Amino acid sequence: MNSTGKDGTPTTDLALEAAERLRGERRGDVPGVTVDELTVEGIAVTRVTVTDQGSQNIGKAPGTYVTVEAPELKQRNPTYSQQVSKVIARELERMLPVPRDAEVLVVGLGNWRAIADSLGPRVASKVYVTRHLGQFLPPDLVAGLRPVSSLSPGVLGITGIETTEVVHGVVEHVKPGALVAVDALAAMDVGRIMTTVQIADSGIHPGSGLGTKRLGLTRQTLGIPVVAVGVPTVVHAVTIAANTIDLLVRTMARQVEYMRFMQPMAAINKRDLIQDVLGDVVGNLVVTPKEIDIEIEEMAKVIAGGLNAALHPGIEETEIMDYIR
Amino acid sequence: MNSTGKDGTPTTDLALEAAERLRGERRGDVPGVTVDELTVEGIAVTRVTVTDQGSQNIGKAPGTYVTVEAPELKQRNPTYSQQVSKVIARELERMLPVPRDAEVLVVGLGNWRAIADSLGPRVASKVYVTRHLGQFLPPDLVAGLRPVSSLSPGVLGITGIETTEVVHGVVEHVKPGALVAVDALAAMDVGRIMTTVQIADSGIHPGSGLGTKRLGLTRQTLGIPVVAVGVPTVVHAVTIAANTIDLLVRTMARQVEYMRFMQPMAAINKRDLIQDVLGDVVGNLVVTPKEIDIEIEEMAKVIAGGLNAALHPGIEETEIMDYIR
Amino acid sequence: MNSTGKDGTPTTDLALEAAERLRGERRGDVPGVTVDELTVEGIAVTRVTVTDQGSQNIGKAPGTYVTVEAPELKQRNPTYSQQVSKVIARELERMLPVPRDAEVLVVGLGNWRAIADSLGPRVASKVYVTRHLGQFLPPDLVAGLRPVSSLSPGVLGITGIETTEVVHGVVEHVKPGALVAVDALAAMDVGRIMTTVQIADSGIHPGSGLGTKRLGLTRQTLGIPVVAVGVPTVVHAVTIAANTIDLLVRTMARQVEYMRFMQPMAAINKRDLIQDVLGDVVGNLVVTPKEIDIEIEEMAKVIAGGLNAALHPGIEETEIMDYIR
Amino acid sequence: MNSTGKDGTPTTDLALEAAERLRGERRGDVPGVTVDELTVEGIAVTRVTVTDQGSQNIGKAPGTYVTVEAPELKQRNPTYSQQVSKVIARELERMLPVPRDAEVLVVGLGNWRAIADSLGPRVASKVYVTRHLGQFLPPDLVAGLRPVSSLSPGVLGITGIETTEVVHGVVEHVKPGALVAVDALAAMDVGRIMTTVQIADSGIHPGSGLGTKRLGLTRQTLGIPVVAVGVPTVVHAVTIAANTIDLLVRTMARQVEYMRFMQPMAAINKRDLIQDVLGDVVGNLVVTPKEIDIEIEEMAKVIAGGLNAALHPGIEETEIMDYIR
Repeated sequence: MNSTGKDGTPTTDLALEAAERLRGERRGDVPGVTVDELTVEGIAVTRVTVTDQGSQNIGKAPGTYVTVEAPELKQRNPTYSQQVSKVIARELERMLPVPRDAEVLVVGLGNWRAIADSLGPRVASKVYVTRHLGQFLPPDLVAGLRPVSSLSPGVLGITGIETTEVVHGVVEHVKPGALVAVDALAAMDVGRIMTTVQIADSGIHPGSGLGTKRLGLTRQTLGIPVVAVGVPTVVHAVTIAANTIDLLVRTMARQVEYMRFMQPMAAINKRDLIQDVLGDVVGNLVVTPKEIDIEIEEMAKVIAGGLNAALHPGIEETEIMDYIR
Repeated sequence: MNSTGKDGTPTTDLALEAAERLRGERRGDVPGVTVDELTVEGIAVTRVTVTDQGSQNIGKAPGTYVTVEAPELKQRNPTYSQQVSKVIARELERMLPVPRDAEVLVVGLGNWRAIADSLGPRVASKVYVTRHLGQFLPPDLVAGLRPVSSLSPGVLGITGIETTEVVHGVVEHVKPGALVAVDALAAMDVGRIMTTVQIADSGIHPGSGLGTKRLGLTRQTLGIPVVAVGVPTVVHAVTIAANTIDLLVRTMARQVEYMRFMQPMAAINKRDLIQDVLGDVVGNLVVTPKEIDIEIEEMAKVIAGGLNAALHPGIEETEIMDYIR
Repeated sequence: MNSTGKDGTPTTDLALEAAERLRGERRGDVPGVTVDELTVEGIAVTRVTVTDQGSQNIGKAPGTYVTVEAPELKQRNPTYSQQVSKVIARELERMLPVPRDAEVLVVGLGNWRAIADSLGPRVASKVYVTRHLGQFLPPDLVAGLRPVSSLSPGVLGITGIETTEVVHGVVEHVKPGALVAVDALAAMDVGRIMTTVQIADSGIHPGSGLGTKRLGLTRQTLGIPVVAVGVPTVVHAVTIAANTIDLLVRTMARQVEYMRFMQPMAAINKRDLIQDVLGDVVGNLVVTPKEIDIEIEEMAKVIAGGLNAALHPGIEETEIMDYIR
Repeated sequence: MNSTGKDGTPTTDLALEAAERLRGERRGDVPGVTVDELTVEGIAVTRVTVTDQGSQNIGKAPGTYVTVEAPELKQRNPTYSQQVSKVIARELERMLPVPRDAEVLVVGLGNWRAIADSLGPRVASKVYVTRHLGQFLPPDLVAGLRPVSSLSPGVLGITGIETTEVVHGVVEHVKPGALVAVDALAAMDVGRIMTTVQIADSGIHPGSGLGTKRLGLTRQTLGIPVVAVGVPTVVHAVTIAANTIDLLVRTMARQVEYMRFMQPMAAINKRDLIQDVLGDVVGNLVVTPKEIDIEIEEMAKVIAGGLNAALHPGIEETEIMDYIR
């Protein structure tokens, strides 16, 4: 999870939300950012393209961000889940410009000891790993299986080592043809928690850090294509508070006759207000579903199913779930 | 966890918070509710007494509610944690009007599959259980150990059985002299998450239910003393939103010259606003610390340490932690 | 798990193994014990019937014991696993002489903190529980779902309470029409670990106990039909040692010309020998597969799938796995 | 875990057991192998030194192997456990020829999904990691804390990547001054399970592998000192069977008058016998305590306590357990 909410402002890891917010504020298009909506297999998919110029505007790295929206995942219907896995698989295949037999390393980012941050390690542990099988592969699959490895490098607080140091070290030894990094995200809209998947080719860019030089996980730094797959598992509490204030102010502005009434509100220090509501631990508070344990495990299966189908051409779409470990 | 936040209003399971809110609203004492503050072993302890009349006012069952506030638990200092366990032990002993050798059943309420609701089962699994040991007890402890048993009955959604049905069935067979029920709570103030412990003699009163008759776990229904131990592990997201609105409105009221400006605000539908911010899943959203996994496990040890010291007179205060399983 | 291996003799919880051993020793049929072999859906099924007389002979309670042998489960082929679930479902249905809509309580026996003993609790947590759903049931299923509840009572060492006390207490309150008890077993043959399922109508008979009166879980004590479902997860280490000795002695007896050579061997104290090999902790040692964690979780799904299909007529055989939680 | 038992012969990862067996067979000293017994803090410690010549004889890499034997760990007395941690700490300090402030990387070898193989990852997750703290260290400890990082690289079957590839990649990036590798071992004597700790400076030498080139983790390959800490968590089932045969044969040899009677036994094919007892899955079967879950977690704390005290000079021996995460 990249965004922290620590500075008391609402944040989102979804390019789509960032683009929509900016379009709302500007009441119009954002230069360098295009948003295309389409439907794949009956499921809403949005493609946000960010140029270098657009990157300055919305604060996301340049690249393509595909957002799969599947609100019915909440109902835990196995047929629907499999459908979502298929859509993820197709978008992943489109983003992975590597030969059919190129080796792929799946990296599960995040902290397996913090439930909301454990999506990456859960997916990494469920992906069908084949790099070591070689001659021992099932004969009917041998042509249809790509060499896949997986790794959950942990987080700085657990290992004392920057995640990217571990990944760079392993990539230099394993020499995969491409990297897929899976991570838990923070959204702005609570409706997106465990229902939205973002697939992007823009790489992973860790926060600016504490004095240590932080390498990103990008095509530039690693020399191979990097696809990031993320799912919002939380909304920062600060976002809820800020959204509440914004909505209240907008509501009142509509109700009062004269906009001059809003003058005093302009003087309200939103940051102080939120600090008053959320206290000193503001950056550490997240909003999650009560049953996050079950929901995150289900989502990890959907993502792993999508990865398996995308990475191994020999796995039929009807048997996506059979190869989840 | 009893309160649900489902009806879109902020709720608290802490009698102290309910009393303070009501005193704030009324700008004065609440009939039938007394609040005494004291300090035990350097730690702030508050005793709220609720009479039958007071019960009508603050919406909590009549009885005594002791609140132990230990904000420094966040720093995970073993000496301080042990100190908190001691204070909990002393308050528990005061609340348990049973002979030294009476059998005690510890019930861990809540859902072990939902991290924020797993405090009860975690404590139940850590308590030093002795009821079955009989002649096999360590000789130097045999006089100092009370027969203790423990049970985590699960929740309706997991077992299909009302928690209270399981507890009543077991109590009828085991026939303990007293019951201690441990549960995760919801607070209104985020600063209380994992830092506050409530100990009460008022019993457990499940929600009004879905047509099924729901027995409570009380001295009346079970025929034995019932002490409830609870720790806030979440604040409902709806509470955060409501607190934000209240604070904003108060702030503005102080800033604007004329109270008539507040007129339009009176017309704001707070419930609709919150619904707009939190969506349809409002009742299902909770605010927790990001690292809830570690914090809830630590708190379970502190509570289990307090229970062990209170229940077994032979366990010295310096070895409280040695008997946690 | 009932058998303990503590007295230094090989033991089995499988009636089929007990019957086969006895037939081998006697070189002929055992009075009161009949063994019928059949094939259901291509899978070997054996039915052992034990009369009161037979019970004295083989040391198993009177009743019918169905053994499903599925060695290919080790290969983790989803289609085959589903086939085994179906066979289990059919045998369970045959054993459960209750009306289509009678309520069933599934009890997961065993210790969830000891991996080899955790099968029962795992199955209980995966069964599709419906007793509490009532009017909230999916409309297309409402006619096809039986009210099912589940409970994992824990073990004496964890709760301080006899398992059977908890179950009796809950049965008196929930009043189900039948009980299904799931438990991990010990076999004599390592080839049966995680590949064999025993389904019996003879009830659960805990060991003779430590002075406390131990009620069984039987039709006699509970007043409702009791079906026990068990899977061998271990072989006691003492069994391996004893089997090794027996085999060596038989091998040598075949090799030496004169039976008188065997005279000295008769004097060998097998129990002392095993004590020398396995030490004081002999009763505490079990033989398991190295990857027991994965194998027991897979087996729990197969059993839960079988229970779901047997208990809920509305669950089609093709969707058995969709209702596992 | 290095030894596999797959070839049907008993194996041990303990140099002490290998040395004792060889001395027994040869009825005398083994050239190049010296065994010194001493007592540290009341606990038996043995030091086995293996020269290049000795290495050929006992099949262990040259180096020093210290064995700490603490059978009373089974009783779970906190004071005794802390004593064992201290002894481990002192032996570790002696083996780690690095400056007080040199950075140390702790690697938890083994498979966290297979309970008996999960010791390494458990210890790695409990060690007090400080490398990333830098200026944020507690002021009273800053001089007493060494920079420590930790990593659990997983196993080939989970990641598709050789463990040693991951470790080499990370060492090249992190550049620690020394490596401590923690691993679960197999012993020959069941009495050693969870009661013995081996500390060695001979490095980690993975099995000969399946065609892939396997680097070891040694001073030669990594360029830094490597200390291996191991605890037996299993005995291979094949070892139990083989020990039983050996003991029986020896017992009989003592009993029969004439050694010529043993002639026929010489013809017994021990390997076939064991295959008959243990079946095709022989290499996959291990003997463990029934409650391995609890025992391995306790042992992980003892080892982590020892590591913390050895690595951080500022951690007093009385507070060893306070820094376990």
